[in-house]
Amino acid sequence: MSKIKKVAILGASGYTGAELVRLIAGHSAMETVVMTADRKAGQAMAQVFPHLRHLDLPVLTRIEDVDFATVDLAFCALPHAMSQEIVKDLPLELKVVDLSADFRLEDVAMYEHWYGHPHYAPDLQKTAVYGLTEFYRNEIANARLVAGTGCNAATGLYALRPLLAAGVIAEDDIIIDMFCGVSGAGRAAREGMLHSEVSEGTHPYGLPVHRHTSEFDQEFRKVTGRDVKVMFTPHLMPANRGILATIHVRGEADKIHECLTQAYESEPFIVALPLGEVPATRHVRGSNFCHVGVVADRLEGRVRVFAALDNLVKGSSGQAMQNANLMLGLPEAMGLEQAPLFP
Amino acid sequence: MSKIKKVAILGASGYTGAELVRLIAGHSAMETVVMTADRKAGQAMAQVFPHLRHLDLPVLTRIEDVDFATVDLAFCALPHAMSQEIVKDLPLELKVVDLSADFRLEDVAMYEHWYGHPHYAPDLQKTAVYGLTEFYRNEIANARLVAGTGCNAATGLYALRPLLAAGVIAEDDIIIDMFCGVSGAGRAAREGMLHSEVSEGTHPYGLPVHRHTSEFDQEFRKVTGRDVKVMFTPHLMPANRGILATIHVRGEADKIHECLTQAYESEPFIVALPLGEVPATRHVRGSNFCHVGVVADRLEGRVRVFAALDNLVKGSSGQAMQNANLMLGLPEAMGLEQAPLFP
Amino acid sequence: MSKIKKVAILGASGYTGAELVRLIAGHSAMETVVMTADRKAGQAMAQVFPHLRHLDLPVLTRIEDVDFATVDLAFCALPHAMSQEIVKDLPLELKVVDLSADFRLEDVAMYEHWYGHPHYAPDLQKTAVYGLTEFYRNEIANARLVAGTGCNAATGLYALRPLLAAGVIAEDDIIIDMFCGVSGAGRAAREGMLHSEVSEGTHPYGLPVHRHTSEFDQEFRKVTGRDVKVMFTPHLMPANRGILATIHVRGEADKIHECLTQAYESEPFIVALPLGEVPATRHVRGSNFCHVGVVADRLEGRVRVFAALDNLVKGSSGQAMQNANLMLGLPEAMGLEQAPLFP
Amino acid sequence: MSKIKKVAILGASGYTGAELVRLIAGHSAMETVVMTADRKAGQAMAQVFPHLRHLDLPVLTRIEDVDFATVDLAFCALPHAMSQEIVKDLPLELKVVDLSADFRLEDVAMYEHWYGHPHYAPDLQKTAVYGLTEFYRNEIANARLVAGTGCNAATGLYALRPLLAAGVIAEDDIIIDMFCGVSGAGRAAREGMLHSEVSEGTHPYGLPVHRHTSEFDQEFRKVTGRDVKVMFTPHLMPANRGILATIHVRGEADKIHECLTQAYESEPFIVALPLGEVPATRHVRGSNFCHVGVVADRLEGRVRVFAALDNLVKGSSGQAMQNANLMLGLPEAMGLEQAPLFP
Repeated sequence: MSKIKKVAILGASGYTGAELVRLIAGHSAMETVVMTADRKAGQAMAQVFPHLRHLDLPVLTRIEDVDFATVDLAFCALPHAMSQEIVKDLPLELKVVDLSADFRLEDVAMYEHWYGHPHYAPDLQKTAVYGLTEFYRNEIANARLVAGTGCNAATGLYALRPLLAAGVIAEDDIIIDMFCGVSGAGRAAREGMLHSEVSEGTHPYGLPVHRHTSEFDQEFRKVTGRDVKVMFTPHLMPANRGILATIHVRGEADKIHECLTQAYESEPFIVALPLGEVPATRHVRGSNFCHVGVVADRLEGRVRVFAALDNLVKGSSGQAMQNANLMLGLPEAMGLEQAPLFP
Repeated sequence: MSKIKKVAILGASGYTGAELVRLIAGHSAMETVVMTADRKAGQAMAQVFPHLRHLDLPVLTRIEDVDFATVDLAFCALPHAMSQEIVKDLPLELKVVDLSADFRLEDVAMYEHWYGHPHYAPDLQKTAVYGLTEFYRNEIANARLVAGTGCNAATGLYALRPLLAAGVIAEDDIIIDMFCGVSGAGRAAREGMLHSEVSEGTHPYGLPVHRHTSEFDQEFRKVTGRDVKVMFTPHLMPANRGILATIHVRGEADKIHECLTQAYESEPFIVALPLGEVPATRHVRGSNFCHVGVVADRLEGRVRVFAALDNLVKGSSGQAMQNANLMLGLPEAMGLEQAPLFP
Repeated sequence: MSKIKKVAILGASGYTGAELVRLIAGHSAMETVVMTADRKAGQAMAQVFPHLRHLDLPVLTRIEDVDFATVDLAFCALPHAMSQEIVKDLPLELKVVDLSADFRLEDVAMYEHWYGHPHYAPDLQKTAVYGLTEFYRNEIANARLVAGTGCNAATGLYALRPLLAAGVIAEDDIIIDMFCGVSGAGRAAREGMLHSEVSEGTHPYGLPVHRHTSEFDQEFRKVTGRDVKVMFTPHLMPANRGILATIHVRGEADKIHECLTQAYESEPFIVALPLGEVPATRHVRGSNFCHVGVVADRLEGRVRVFAALDNLVKGSSGQAMQNANLMLGLPEAMGLEQAPLFP
Repeated sequence: MSKIKKVAILGASGYTGAELVRLIAGHSAMETVVMTADRKAGQAMAQVFPHLRHLDLPVLTRIEDVDFATVDLAFCALPHAMSQEIVKDLPLELKVVDLSADFRLEDVAMYEHWYGHPHYAPDLQKTAVYGLTEFYRNEIANARLVAGTGCNAATGLYALRPLLAAGVIAEDDIIIDMFCGVSGAGRAAREGMLHSEVSEGTHPYGLPVHRHTSEFDQEFRKVTGRDVKVMFTPHLMPANRGILATIHVRGEADKIHECLTQAYESEPFIVALPLGEVPATRHVRGSNFCHVGVVADRLEGRVRVFAALDNLVKGSSGQAMQNANLMLGLPEAMGLEQAPLFP
């Protein structure tokens, strides 16, 4: 049994924060010792998230009141832009896994372009590692700061990154449609996320260019050494959890399938389905799994690649935990083996 | 006020049959005088569809017991393949609107190819008119037999047909993703359509080639004079009603938008949204409207075209009613003006 | 054909306002000439409610900019408490149907008790008629101001009022459980009404005493001449529309059923189901119907009475329209005959 | 670490079977070595339940092909009535946890009364222990055959059993309304369980007397020594998982709350909420927890008691696992500590 690692969750009153608490509760070598939530400081977690009321958890507190001396690692689940401000003042010896968009883009000019304001911690940005675990294991294990990927970005990257690395698909004709559960929008009260507004239907959103596109640009350039620009269209799906990416590429279905099968054959969480089978978001719900599938079309050279994951687990908090395990010298899959919940 | 037309609904125990009853109840010149449902013959509609219990309706009966002498038009909402057998024996003077797949494909060889068996009424097939109202008004008005379109096909055709006719998009690079409500699968009890199986998630289905693709092939050949083969990927959406088509084409967004705006400016039910706006299935629910939208991408020459409609109304029973109005000499929009139901 | 009546909708940016627009669009003798929405003044309805974009509607405006000279009747769909302030300054010759809680309680002391502040228009309150159409037809037809009932209250009253009037149930042992769709909470952005918070589950709310209880107290006193205090427990149901009341009473099932059947046999919208049959909210969705049912229990003298209606139609905007018809001398059911939308 | 116990799941192709597989996968001292499913024999679990595809599981087989020699315990998740036939032929040294209704009623005459046919294994019935863990721990630990409770029965019993035992509520005025997720109806394809039929609404079912009432009769007689007959009305809720019981009793709220708090203060899975707080099904989803709450009414002596649990976990498969732990000498809570999944 490993020595218990003590972790802090900064921003524990949102969905990704609660999901971290849930996962840590099932982790035999990790313990939540600090939870912050500025507007709800002083409350018990049972008041904010009654589904966690059976756990013995610290009271929510303000970040400025936290003593980080005994904390091994902080998960930072704060809103975009605030994360930069907070993380730059954290003790340097504290390991940090950030779940926001704040440290994802290596090029701060790109950050400014996509997010509309200068980066508040450009030096820190240079040290951050992009948290797509399966492709940056070594860097993550040695990092002080890991930047969680966008949940949409992760879904698309699991489908496409090995294919671009292997050169088995055309680089300039990639079309990504994505269907995203509403929990990805967070817990902030917004008219557009009311049950009455999003149940029983679907619509595209975030057009003409969703911000997560920037992560595709960055990662695909890294893997190909050139600009690879995809067309990305997200849709809101009337379900709480789950993202399905339906991706249209040019190549040969069997080579594409073979490439993904090999890429993921040793991975604990990424499953390449048999050729011709399709994933469903409900079959990974609540778990850290990602299912990828390949289906040919009647049109020669046209292939569909699918990927499905749970945005709150493999798309954010589960990924964060997987990275934290690596950073803390724990087995990578520890605390993440729960089977999906269906139905 | 027009003289009241008497209609029969063959196969009234399914969702499209019930939807016809609902629409006819609000139609001031049409009356349901016959309803058949073989396995539920003898039952009142209130037992089969309690939401229609307030209506004064005939008892469900068997087709062989129907006297068609006083019927002006029959809606045929029977299962695929059965429709051919029934329609070929109906009186020749009886006008027929068929809602199944049985008479959609003009080429019976194509029918056999896509549906796996020879057509049972090839001569009758030759007389059938494809029921996409906005593009075949005159033929429909003079037809004895009109073949309802597939609900997926209708959605895609409203987005694409004017664009291919005008030559404003590339013909050989059209990708259609579609998100379809579960009522499209009908009322037959199937494990895969249980609430527990389809709620709270999504997945693609009907791959590698969905049968409705045949209707795209047929209609796009008619309008271009050559083979135009699209890549079509339907997904099951956890909602009862609605289809959203997200279509990726090559062309210029403003020309595409202008083309659709002009094509539909006089249409009562097809609405071209302002450039850059996207439709939502819930904004057409329960109505005969179809909303189409155009959004450019950051990639030059890449454009998204969207279409949304209610599969049970504009995608089937509403379309059938619109066509019946034309065939019976009634105002085309009669009984179809209900606003969508939201939320 | 009646002369077209001109109506204003004050507070048209909420769900009940939109529902009024929808219903009026299908009404052959009523026209929406004014729509107000203070925070959205200047916008087109298509921006606020895209499902109504096909209608030719006035632009949203501020109440203070409205010229009521040509308006026959105003529907007031404003938030609670604001309605009193607005209605008291409306022209005296303008008929008003208020959909808020502001004028429901005849006794202003009771209003203050239940709503926590003095009534702002006590004189006006004295003139208001409680809008439960089936029981106050004459008063409504002659009223200047009609107060719409609570949607929960209406559901319970349809089940219980005839039974208490006829004395066929015990007065002091009535238990009402209710399951209410989320649209009843309105369109204001609140964390507790997010899709992620209310889908896929249920919970009781508004305890220990929901404000709509006050309407039961008032109406049951009127009909019995004494205090009849019920126990009322509402639950939030993960559906947009619909309220089901499950009511436990003491009496004889056949007498109770007979009483309801007789009470509603001439009513256009209240349907007493056969003894032993139960209603479902989805079978009245989108319509002005209310279904009531009676089922005995194995325990002698114990009976369940059920009622189901659509909270946005029969529970608010449809009721308002029915009352407006009476006030304007139009046929009571005009514009309200739409069949329910199922599935 | 305990020695790994080998278990069989008879009837693994239904929801409770799949849920057992899920729970066992997270259990450190239990292993699934046999899974049967007659109609799907020969298939891999990945085909039947793709969400379990990451697990290393035996192929589905027929019961008659099973060698029970090395099996420590069999979970029997077969349909009602079939269970009796199968269990009576199992080896006597094999421990059995049955999840069906077949062995719940101690009195075979009562079984025949409620289920409409003679019991097929009356001698075996005499040896069965009712599986409500918290109240029959010792008997269960020593039993060879444990009968899982009905999921509705369990929910009601957790709220009421301590109250009747302590005599703090009136015995002859108990009214139970229940709201039940659709997964309780199982995976068999039935029209009434289609997404289109049950989403977006609610209705009562199983009236006038649901079979689970028999379990209330049995248990309440045991605890009070006399007949205690409740009025029980279940409703179908448009959600996959979860049951909420809303129970109306006569007594004093603080005594009732105190009684439940004491009854469950040492229980790992039953949580008594603070007085005045209400449970929500979504806050126990996917977990073995049951939350009970007490809320007074304005009417003196009238109190609401609520209970919420996940029908597939605490209501069936989780309960079965908890009982199996006891029977196998394992820690009772082993493998059941997962936190609920929200949202």
